[in-house]
Amino acid sequence: MKVMPKTPFDHGENGLRVESESDLVQTYLAPLAAGMPGAFGLRDDAAVLPNEPGSDLVFSSDPIVAGVHFFADDQPPDTAWKALAVNVSDVAAKGAKPVAYILNLALPEAPKRTWMADFARGLAEAQAAFGCRLIGGDTDRTPGPLSIGITMIASLPSGTFVPRHAAKPGDHVFVTGTIGDAALGLALRRDSSLFDAALTDADRNFLLGRYLRPQPRIALAESLRAHARAALDISDGLLKDLARLAEPGGMALRFDAVPLSTATRAALSADRRLIDKILGGGGDYELLVAVAPSEASAFQESAQRAAVEVYDLGILEGSKVVVLDASGTELELPKSGYDHFSR
Amino acid sequence: MKVMPKTPFDHGENGLRVESESDLVQTYLAPLAAGMPGAFGLRDDAAVLPNEPGSDLVFSSDPIVAGVHFFADDQPPDTAWKALAVNVSDVAAKGAKPVAYILNLALPEAPKRTWMADFARGLAEAQAAFGCRLIGGDTDRTPGPLSIGITMIASLPSGTFVPRHAAKPGDHVFVTGTIGDAALGLALRRDSSLFDAALTDADRNFLLGRYLRPQPRIALAESLRAHARAALDISDGLLKDLARLAEPGGMALRFDAVPLSTATRAALSADRRLIDKILGGGGDYELLVAVAPSEASAFQESAQRAAVEVYDLGILEGSKVVVLDASGTELELPKSGYDHFSR
Repeated sequence: MKVMPKTPFDHGENGLRVESESDLVQTYLAPLAAGMPGAFGLRDDAAVLPNEPGSDLVFSSDPIVAGVHFFADDQPPDTAWKALAVNVSDVAAKGAKPVAYILNLALPEAPKRTWMADFARGLAEAQAAFGCRLIGGDTDRTPGPLSIGITMIASLPSGTFVPRHAAKPGDHVFVTGTIGDAALGLALRRDSSLFDAALTDADRNFLLGRYLRPQPRIALAESLRAHARAALDISDGLLKDLARLAEPGGMALRFDAVPLSTATRAALSADRRLIDKILGGGGDYELLVAVAPSEASAFQESAQRAAVEVYDLGILEGSKVVVLDASGTELELPKSGYDHFSR
Repeated sequence: MKVMPKTPFDHGENGLRVESESDLVQTYLAPLAAGMPGAFGLRDDAAVLPNEPGSDLVFSSDPIVAGVHFFADDQPPDTAWKALAVNVSDVAAKGAKPVAYILNLALPEAPKRTWMADFARGLAEAQAAFGCRLIGGDTDRTPGPLSIGITMIASLPSGTFVPRHAAKPGDHVFVTGTIGDAALGLALRRDSSLFDAALTDADRNFLLGRYLRPQPRIALAESLRAHARAALDISDGLLKDLARLAEPGGMALRFDAVPLSTATRAALSADRRLIDKILGGGGDYELLVAVAPSEASAFQESAQRAAVEVYDLGILEGSKVVVLDASGTELELPKSGYDHFSR
């Protein structure tokens, strides 16, 4: 078992620290821009992307901050992966293909070389998996916690952007993958003794992995562009994001239609109250997709060809999202989903 | 005289606070995205920019953080202006025209409505002045200080990007505007009693304004594209940025060729040691431009037509940047320019 560092910057027993901004950028980040001529080896103040005729560009920008979106003592490659993955997920939900990203790294102090090397390795793995490259950005020292700001630049054929707010009553709602795993993984990350009797070691590792290394659904982009009316990724919990997709309408969601992993089923069997966490916890980065009835089977077939599992959650109807149990009775659930400024 | 608030969030005597992320975004930020269909009223997770045939897109991203790049008790409209201006300056130096920007606002607590309204007003003024609009972004609560991250998206005719590293020995180096004002403005912002005998109130206000409200040189974009070999903006001090432009070469800079404002001349007359601050202090956001000898007079004429004052600082030669006094003797100057991670 690896010993967790006390802070991101304690990582490595006796590591040297980076010596300057240009040391940090040129040694660890510039290699991530290889193959992008418009990045100028990260030696310019700006970057350029050549025009790709027939393509529109799509942008998303979600920073992650230590203590808010990840743990300061997460392994650096996991933190790097997550920073990129959450942004790739946003553009994947729009049917777009990642092209390049801008990195704003705010560090509380000059990082150790071992930490920077591990962090850059995580970025390298993630950008290889997602098909994009670093094109520019900025490094700063901050009096606050470690913050990793990524702006994702993606492309899609002109006019094919899949919006969030275009679903209609009667549309089918599909979801990819399984729901709730990341919320349980987060609970395990906080307290590894949770669900002790219910889960195997393999279950635990699966749930932790779902929390630490979200897998954005880039393989579904073409199916979305061809068949979806609206889509978004599940970052703030199924119920909150389903309400956004359905807005201004709603849906009666049968809990037994929600796809659950073996591990999450096992935890839920041991404690039925986990239903709140499963439906309200964020971080799965699966996709919610509204599809017109006439396109539903074509969408499912297209997703199957793309090797992405999709599940039909039901039909948009009514004016709010409610959850029903197997007998059709409405479940009472606490207000769910995360808001940074609500009291 | 206005009473300065103790923190950005004390601004307003008895103000209410924003109630939620959607309140903050929809009430104060969505109006800044009016006229950008691809911003979807800031109600999507991503934004889209339609392809503009014949244009490349240029990106820059420089966050500003309270306590590092601005004072936590600066007036909110000034902070907003600076956040946008420093990024516009980066793309202006490349010959590009601002189009849109992404805003990542990290707030230590739910801001008061008066603060948000003032901040949004500053953004509105700045985006009107610079010709760009808000297209997307993110708001977060942070355990750290207020941080404003802007990613600027600009455009230029395909293939006309003006790089930082392409100057050649023998090129003329031009600078816009006047140098050192922002560094003296910063000194005055810290201690308003400085240079007491030397400066008039008008001088003080001028220098403070140069620090608080930098004016990016967007009017020079066409002249740069047509005539410049290389360019960058002066964010980290004239000497440091001149060394970057000249790299791997150098230049013998005569101090009496450096354009100074009346206010800065007056302060310098009272204290010759200010020469360090003038040449080494950042924040002027003027441009340094390398122009081939054959293009020098055409560049000057083009800049004049654009109503931007440019001054010839000399010729690139040698292997390092040195500063000479009026008699041609080399001046000894301390190591200058800002680096976040150097010791």
